[in-house]
Amino acid sequence: ELRRSIPEIVFVEGKTLAQTLKVASEMAEAGGRVILARASKAHLSELLKLKSKFKVKVWEQAGMAVVKRQDFKTVKTGGRVAILTAGTADIPVALEAEVVAGELGCDIYHAYDVGVAGMHRLLEPLKRISSWADAVVVVAGMEGALPSVVASLVDLPVVGVPTSVGYGYGSGGKAALMAMLQSCSLGLAVVNIDNGVGAGAYAALIANRAARARSHGKEA
Amino acid sequence: ELRRSIPEIVFVEGKTLAQTLKVASEMAEAGGRVILARASKAHLSELLKLKSKFKVKVWEQAGMAVVKRQDFKTVKTGGRVAILTAGTADIPVALEAEVVAGELGCDIYHAYDVGVAGMHRLLEPLKRISSWADAVVVVAGMEGALPSVVASLVDLPVVGVPTSVGYGYGSGGKAALMAMLQSCSLGLAVVNIDNGVGAGAYAALIANRAARARSHGKEA
Amino acid sequence: ELRRSIPEIVFVEGKTLAQTLKVASEMAEAGGRVILARASKAHLSELLKLKSKFKVKVWEQAGMAVVKRQDFKTVKTGGRVAILTAGTADIPVALEAEVVAGELGCDIYHAYDVGVAGMHRLLEPLKRISSWADAVVVVAGMEGALPSVVASLVDLPVVGVPTSVGYGYGSGGKAALMAMLQSCSLGLAVVNIDNGVGAGAYAALIANRAARARSHGKEA
Amino acid sequence: ELRRSIPEIVFVEGKTLAQTLKVASEMAEAGGRVILARASKAHLSELLKLKSKFKVKVWEQAGMAVVKRQDFKTVKTGGRVAILTAGTADIPVALEAEVVAGELGCDIYHAYDVGVAGMHRLLEPLKRISSWADAVVVVAGMEGALPSVVASLVDLPVVGVPTSVGYGYGSGGKAALMAMLQSCSLGLAVVNIDNGVGAGAYAALIANRAARARSHGKEA
Amino acid sequence: ELRRSIPEIVFVEGKTLAQTLKVASEMAEAGGRVILARASKAHLSELLKLKSKFKVKVWEQAGMAVVKRQDFKTVKTGGRVAILTAGTADIPVALEAEVVAGELGCDIYHAYDVGVAGMHRLLEPLKRISSWADAVVVVAGMEGALPSVVASLVDLPVVGVPTSVGYGYGSGGKAALMAMLQSCSLGLAVVNIDNGVGAGAYAALIANRAARARSHGKEA
Amino acid sequence: ELRRSIPEIVFVEGKTLAQTLKVASEMAEAGGRVILARASKAHLSELLKLKSKFKVKVWEQAGMAVVKRQDFKTVKTGGRVAILTAGTADIPVALEAEVVAGELGCDIYHAYDVGVAGMHRLLEPLKRISSWADAVVVVAGMEGALPSVVASLVDLPVVGVPTSVGYGYGSGGKAALMAMLQSCSLGLAVVNIDNGVGAGAYAALIANRAARARSHGKEA
Amino acid sequence: ELRRSIPEIVFVEGKTLAQTLKVASEMAEAGGRVILARASKAHLSELLKLKSKFKVKVWEQAGMAVVKRQDFKTVKTGGRVAILTAGTADIPVALEAEVVAGELGCDIYHAYDVGVAGMHRLLEPLKRISSWADAVVVVAGMEGALPSVVASLVDLPVVGVPTSVGYGYGSGGKAALMAMLQSCSLGLAVVNIDNGVGAGAYAALIANRAARARSHGKEA
Amino acid sequence: ELRRSIPEIVFVEGKTLAQTLKVASEMAEAGGRVILARASKAHLSELLKLKSKFKVKVWEQAGMAVVKRQDFKTVKTGGRVAILTAGTADIPVALEAEVVAGELGCDIYHAYDVGVAGMHRLLEPLKRISSWADAVVVVAGMEGALPSVVASLVDLPVVGVPTSVGYGYGSGGKAALMAMLQSCSLGLAVVNIDNGVGAGAYAALIANRAARARSHGKEA
Repeated sequence: ELRRSIPEIVFVEGKTLAQTLKVASEMAEAGGRVILARASKAHLSELLKLKSKFKVKVWEQAGMAVVKRQDFKTVKTGGRVAILTAGTADIPVALEAEVVAGELGCDIYHAYDVGVAGMHRLLEPLKRISSWADAVVVVAGMEGALPSVVASLVDLPVVGVPTSVGYGYGSGGKAALMAMLQSCSLGLAVVNIDNGVGAGAYAALIANRAARARSHGKEA
Repeated sequence: ELRRSIPEIVFVEGKTLAQTLKVASEMAEAGGRVILARASKAHLSELLKLKSKFKVKVWEQAGMAVVKRQDFKTVKTGGRVAILTAGTADIPVALEAEVVAGELGCDIYHAYDVGVAGMHRLLEPLKRISSWADAVVVVAGMEGALPSVVASLVDLPVVGVPTSVGYGYGSGGKAALMAMLQSCSLGLAVVNIDNGVGAGAYAALIANRAARARSHGKEA
Repeated sequence: ELRRSIPEIVFVEGKTLAQTLKVASEMAEAGGRVILARASKAHLSELLKLKSKFKVKVWEQAGMAVVKRQDFKTVKTGGRVAILTAGTADIPVALEAEVVAGELGCDIYHAYDVGVAGMHRLLEPLKRISSWADAVVVVAGMEGALPSVVASLVDLPVVGVPTSVGYGYGSGGKAALMAMLQSCSLGLAVVNIDNGVGAGAYAALIANRAARARSHGKEA
Repeated sequence: ELRRSIPEIVFVEGKTLAQTLKVASEMAEAGGRVILARASKAHLSELLKLKSKFKVKVWEQAGMAVVKRQDFKTVKTGGRVAILTAGTADIPVALEAEVVAGELGCDIYHAYDVGVAGMHRLLEPLKRISSWADAVVVVAGMEGALPSVVASLVDLPVVGVPTSVGYGYGSGGKAALMAMLQSCSLGLAVVNIDNGVGAGAYAALIANRAARARSHGKEA
Repeated sequence: ELRRSIPEIVFVEGKTLAQTLKVASEMAEAGGRVILARASKAHLSELLKLKSKFKVKVWEQAGMAVVKRQDFKTVKTGGRVAILTAGTADIPVALEAEVVAGELGCDIYHAYDVGVAGMHRLLEPLKRISSWADAVVVVAGMEGALPSVVASLVDLPVVGVPTSVGYGYGSGGKAALMAMLQSCSLGLAVVNIDNGVGAGAYAALIANRAARARSHGKEA
Repeated sequence: ELRRSIPEIVFVEGKTLAQTLKVASEMAEAGGRVILARASKAHLSELLKLKSKFKVKVWEQAGMAVVKRQDFKTVKTGGRVAILTAGTADIPVALEAEVVAGELGCDIYHAYDVGVAGMHRLLEPLKRISSWADAVVVVAGMEGALPSVVASLVDLPVVGVPTSVGYGYGSGGKAALMAMLQSCSLGLAVVNIDNGVGAGAYAALIANRAARARSHGKEA
Repeated sequence: ELRRSIPEIVFVEGKTLAQTLKVASEMAEAGGRVILARASKAHLSELLKLKSKFKVKVWEQAGMAVVKRQDFKTVKTGGRVAILTAGTADIPVALEAEVVAGELGCDIYHAYDVGVAGMHRLLEPLKRISSWADAVVVVAGMEGALPSVVASLVDLPVVGVPTSVGYGYGSGGKAALMAMLQSCSLGLAVVNIDNGVGAGAYAALIANRAARARSHGKEA
Repeated sequence: ELRRSIPEIVFVEGKTLAQTLKVASEMAEAGGRVILARASKAHLSELLKLKSKFKVKVWEQAGMAVVKRQDFKTVKTGGRVAILTAGTADIPVALEAEVVAGELGCDIYHAYDVGVAGMHRLLEPLKRISSWADAVVVVAGMEGALPSVVASLVDLPVVGVPTSVGYGYGSGGKAALMAMLQSCSLGLAVVNIDNGVGAGAYAALIANRAARARSHGKEA
C-alpha cells in the first residue's frame, strides 16, 4: 500500500491558457486541490476566472496558483518550515517553496535578503530558526554561500536551492549549485536550480513527519 | 546558543599515518569519539594500533573507522534510516552513510543491488521502508535512476547519493548527479558525488528529529 | 548497388515559406513523397495549400508534414514499432518517430506518459510490446530513466530518444542523454536529443528487416 | 512473462582475483555460461585456471573471457552481425562486440582499419555487408566519421561505438560520440564510449530477431 | 617594416546603421576599400545608399558588403582558392570566405552540398581541386566529417571551418570543431566556428604566396 | 623605462634534478636571488646541496625554495600582507603566497583554518587585518565562500585563491573559482586555482606601493 | 568596527521603472549618493526625471547613472586609476569601471582600442601608466591577451576584466577569462566577465590606499 | 590520381616495443622511410637497435624517431618553415613540427621562449621570419597569446599549436586553444593541442607549394 502525501503539482510552462484552465478545473474537481507552478501573468489571470466555481489564490511574483474545490480544506499539520533567501532576486523561488509547504499544511517562517554580503542581518533569523523549525529551506544565487553558513550554525536539515541569479562564469545557477554540493558543512542537501517547488515539498515531508510524531508520540 | 549534534568527522585522505594517529587519539581523548573517513588500508591498520587505549572499529570496504574513549557510549536515538544501493559497486559509499548514521544513534536497515536493471528485487525493501523508516538514503551510480523510482513510491524524504561508478560520457558520477537533480519525483534531495558521509548525517538529522518527537511528544 | 530504403526527409527550420513550398512540391513530384520535419505552424499552413495538387497530411504538434503525389501509395511492410513517452511534454518528439516509421510502412503502437514517476501505468504497455513489437522507441526528458527500465524488461532493441525537456543542471536534454548512455541495461542505443525523426527511421529499419524475413523466410 | 535473451555479463574491473574466480565459477555453474569483460591480464590468467572444471576462452586484447559448463553449447541463431573499425586502436572495443554477439549465437564478419583517412579500404567490406548483414557495428575514435559514412551507404541499422582513442580537445571519445550523435545520416544509433559489449548485444538483438523470422516466417 | 597584406575588415554586428555608414565611407575613402561582415539586411540596404559615391557590392545571404572608392581596383593575384561545403546550410559561411579571398585577389572555385551523406557528389570537385587549387576551404556543420575526408584525398592545405549548424549534444558547431581538430588526416588546420572571413583570408595568404612565386620564380 | 619589481620565480615541475640545480645556481649567481616553486621533496633535497655556495631556504609543505647569493639581502619594504585559509588543506597554497610576499619585502600576518564552517574563529583575525593590512590573500577550496565573507567585512583589496581541494561536482577548484568570481561582495579579485605564487606577488605589489607612499609621502 | 568605503551600487537589471526610481531616490536621500548599473535606456530616461530633486548623471553606453543629493560632494582622493581596452566593443565595460572609480574619488586615465592586434597603439599609454597610475584596469574580450601583455610591462597591479565579446568556441568571455587566469605574467588578478563595476571598485580600493599614504605618510 | 606527399607517420603510444620495431622496420623497408612520434625513451632505445640495418635518428625530448633505408635520401624542397615557442616547456611540441617539416624537405628556422611575458625577445625573430619564411608554426601553452601577436605582425600564414602546458581553469591546453580560435588577428589557423606533428606537416604543405612555384614558375 504505497501512497504519496504530496498533492498534485502542475507545471504550467508550455501549456496554452485553455489547456491550463481545463487541467486546473478537472484536477481541482477530482482531487479537491491542484497547485500550479511556473505560470505567466496571463495564465494567472485566466486561472482567476475559475473563482466563480473554485477557491483560487495566486502569487504573481512566484508564478503560482492554488485552485481548490469549495469544500476543500488544507489541514494544518503543525510542521514547521523556515525559508531564507540570500538576496531579493531569490524571493520568487522562495515563494514557490512557501506556497507548496503551506499547502502541505506546514507553518512557515521566512526571512529574505540575509546573505553573506550583509551577515549581520542573518543573526536574528538564525536564533528564531534554531529554536523553532523542523527544516530550513535556504535559497541563494550568485556564489551560493548562505546554505553552507546556515548549515554550519543550526542543528537542522537544510535544503539548499541554488537560483539562476548570476552572470559570467558560473552563471545560470551553476556556481551556486556547485558551492552547495561542495559545502564543508554537514546537514545540507540540495535540489536543482530554481526548484523552489521541490524544496518546499521536501522540507514539508521532513517537518510533517516530525509534527506527526509530536502529536502521536510512540505510535507515529 | 547554536550547537550542532553532528560529531567530529575527519577526512583522512592526504594525511600521513602519523598525522592520522595523532588527530584520532587527540580528538577521541577530547571529545570521546571521532569518526574517520576516506582512509586507506594502511591508515586503518595504523588506527587499529590505538586499540590498546581506545575502542576502535574499522570498515575496510568503506575506508572508515570510529575511535572512542573506553568510557564513551553511542546513545541510541530511535531514529530509523534506510539505505539502498542500485549496484554492488555502490556499497562502499552506502557503508559511509551507514556508519555515520549509526554513530548518530540511528537504527539502520539496508538493501543492496536493487537498481532498475533488476527491479523485482526492489519490491520487498520498499514495503519494509514504507512502514518503518524516517528517511531513506539511495545510493546509485551509472544512470542514477533508483532514487527517482524510490521517491515516487514512498512517502518519505529520500537523500540521493550519486556515485562515481560509470564510464564514458557522464562518467565520474555526473550522469547520476544530473539525473537525480532532474528527477520528476518530488521528495528527493541530493548530496555531492560519493558523499556517503554527508548523506548519512543528513538522514540522521531528519530521523533523530522524528525520533525525539516520538519520545517527547509535544515538548519536542 | 548501394541504396537506402529511407525516403527523403527535409528539415524545414530556417527555410522561408516560399523555399519550403518549392522544395516540397519538387521533391514530391520527383520522388512521389517527401516528409517535412521541424516545421512551424506557418509552414504547415503554407504546405496545406499544396492540397490542390498533392496529398498533404500535417501533424501540428510534431511540426511534421507528408506531401505525396496523388498516385503515391505508402506500402505496408508489416514491421512493428512501439513508441513510448515518459511524459506528456515528450509527445511531439514521439510523433516525429511515429510519422517517419509509419511512412516507412510500419504498424505503430504507442503509449504516452508512462514514466518512472508513475510506473503502474507502464505495465500494460510492456505486456503488449513484449509479445508484438520488433523495436521500441522510448522518448524521455528530465532524468531519462524510462528507456533503461524498458530495456531491462523487454527482449527487444530499444531506441532511446532524450528530449530537451528539463531545467537547471542537466537541462536541454543533457541529463537524459547521459542517463541513457550510462544505462546498466543492455539492449539500448540512443539518438541525439529531440531526434524523433532519426529514432523512427532507425526502428523502422530494424522492424522492416524482421518483417521481410517473416514474409520471405530463408530468402530474406 | 518478461525475460531477456541476453546472457549474464560481468564487468571484472575493480574485483579482486579471488572475487572474479568465485563469481565466474558460480555463475557458469548456475547458468551454464558467463561472459566476463574489462578483465586485466592477471584476471584472464586466473580465469584460465578454471579450465580443469569449465570450458574457458579468453581474448587478451579485448580483456574478455567466456566460461562455460562442460555441457553448455552456444546455439547458433543464424543472425548476421558485421563489425568495422576505423583504426587499429579501435580493435579491442570491436572484439568486445564480436565476443558478445558471437555468444549470442550470431555469425560475425569483421573488417578493421577502414576509416576515412584511407577510404579505398572501405569499399570491399561495404559490398559484403550490404548483401549479407542484419546489423552493423561501427567502432571509431578520433573524429568518429566512419559510422556516418557507413550509415549513408548501407541500408541497415548501424550501431556506432565511439572509442576513447584521441587527444587534446575532444579527447576521451567525446569528439567521436558527438560526431555520431550529430550525424547527417539516418540509420545510426549509438552506445556509450568504449561500450563494445553493449553494441554487440544490441546488434545481436536485431540480428537474432531477423534470423528467427527467416526460420519461422509468419510465426515469428 | 612589418605590414599585413590583408585589407580592413569590419564586423558590423552591434553597430547602429549610422555608425556603419560612417565607418564604411570613412574607411573606403581613406584606404580605397573596406569589407564589411556580419551585416543584417537593414545594414546592407543602408550601405547600398553609398552607391552615389562609392562602388558597393553586397551579398545578402552572407551578410557581407564591399565598399570601394571609384578609383579602387582589386588586383588579381593568380592565387587559387577552392571552397567546399558539406550542406546547403553551410553556404553563408562559405560565401564569407569567398568574398574575402576574392577581394584578396584570388580566383575561386566552389562546390556546395558535397558532404559525406552523399559522397558521390564529392568526386568531381576533388578532381578539379587536386589539379588546380593552392588551398582548400572546407565548411561543415553537424558531424564535421568532410574536411577530414578531403584532407585525406588531396595534397593541399585544407582550412576547416566548423559551422554552428547542428542540434542537441554537440550543437552550435562544437561537434564539428572537435571532429576537425581530432582528424586522423594530416593537412588540416581550423578556424573558429562560423569564421568564414578568417578562413578566406588564410587560404588567400597561402594561395597568394604560391601565386607570387609562380610569377616571380626564385625572386619570390 | 619599463621594469618589474617582481623577482625571478622558476616553476620546477617537469625539470630534472640536474636542470633544477643548474637553473637555481645560475640565476642566484646572476640576479642575487631566485625563488623556486612547485618543487618535489627530491628537488628540495637537491637544492639544499647548494648550501655550500648559497643561502638556501626550503618550505617542504609548500614545495618552495629560495636560493640567494651570500651577499644578497631581501630589503624590507614595510608592505603589510595578511593571508587567511579556509581549511588546513589550503595551507600549502597559502605558504606559496607567504614566501613570495615575504621575499618581496612585505611583513606577513596569517591565520589558518578560519572558514565558514567555523566562523567564530574568523573574528579575531578580521579585527587584526582591518587595522593593519594593505592587502589580504584569502585561500579557499571546496565551496570557496571565505573570500566573499572577508571582502564583505574589511575595507581592503582581497585576493582570492581557489584551491583544488574538493571532490565530485565542482572538484579541482572549479566550485571555489566560480564562487569567488560570482561573489556579491565588491573588493575581491582572483587568481587561478592553486596559484599562491601569483596571489603573493599581487598582494605584495599592492602593499609595497602603499608602503612606499607611507615612506615617501607625496613624492611616491 | 568594520566598515566598507565602497558606496552603494544597485544593479537595475530586472527591476521595473517604478522600483528603480523608488530605490534610487530613497538611497540617494538616505546615503547622499547611489550608483546604478546595468540600466536600460528606459531606466536612464526615467532616472533623469529625478533631476528636479537630485543631481543626476547618466552614461548611456555603459548603462550607468549616479544620483546624488544636492548637498552631496564626491571627495577627490588623489588615487590614480588607469583603464585600457583591447577593442572598441569593450568600452561599455570600461566605462562601468571608470564611473565607479571616479565616484570613489579617483583620478582616471583611459586609452581604448589598444589590443594586441594593433600593438603599436599600446606604447604611449604604457609610458603614461608606468609613471603615474596606482592600479590598471585592462578590459578585453576575444582572446583576452592584453592584460597579460600589460602586466608583463608595467610594475603595477593589473585588474583584468574579460568581456563577453567573442564568438564560437570560447565565446561569452570564456576564452578571455581563461587566458587571463592562465597568464604567464605575475601582477594580474581578475574579476568575472563584464564586471566593470567590480574592477573599478577594486582598482579604487588599491589606489585610494596608496593616495592616503601619500597624504598621511607614516600615519596611514 | 589522388596522392598525398606526406610520408607515413606512426604514433607509437600504446604499442609494445616489439610491435614498434616490427612496424618501423617493415615500413622503412617498404617505403624507404618512416617517422615515429610519441615514443617513450624505451621505444627510442629499441629503435636505435635498428641502426645495423637502417639509418636511424632519434629526438629524445620530442619522443620522435626517423628510420630510413640506407639508400633513402630526403629531398630538399626549398620550402621555408619558421617555428616559434612561447616558453621552454613548449619545445618538445615544436620539435615534433621541426622533425616532420624537415623530413618533408623544408629548411627550418626556430626561436624558443619568445612569449608575451618577455616580448623584447620576439623582435629579432620576427624580422627574420618576415623576410624569409613561407609559413610560421607558433607553439604556446598557458594563455596562448603568442600566435595572435605574431599573426598581427607578419604577412604569412601562422599555424597555431596550443600545448597542454598550464594549470587550474583552462588547463590541458584548453585556454590556449580557445585563445587562438578567438584571435582578433587574421592569418591564424590552428591544430589540436600538442599536435606538433600536424602543424609541421601543414606548414610544410604550404611551404613546399611556394617552393615548387619558385622553382618551376608558371608551370607550378
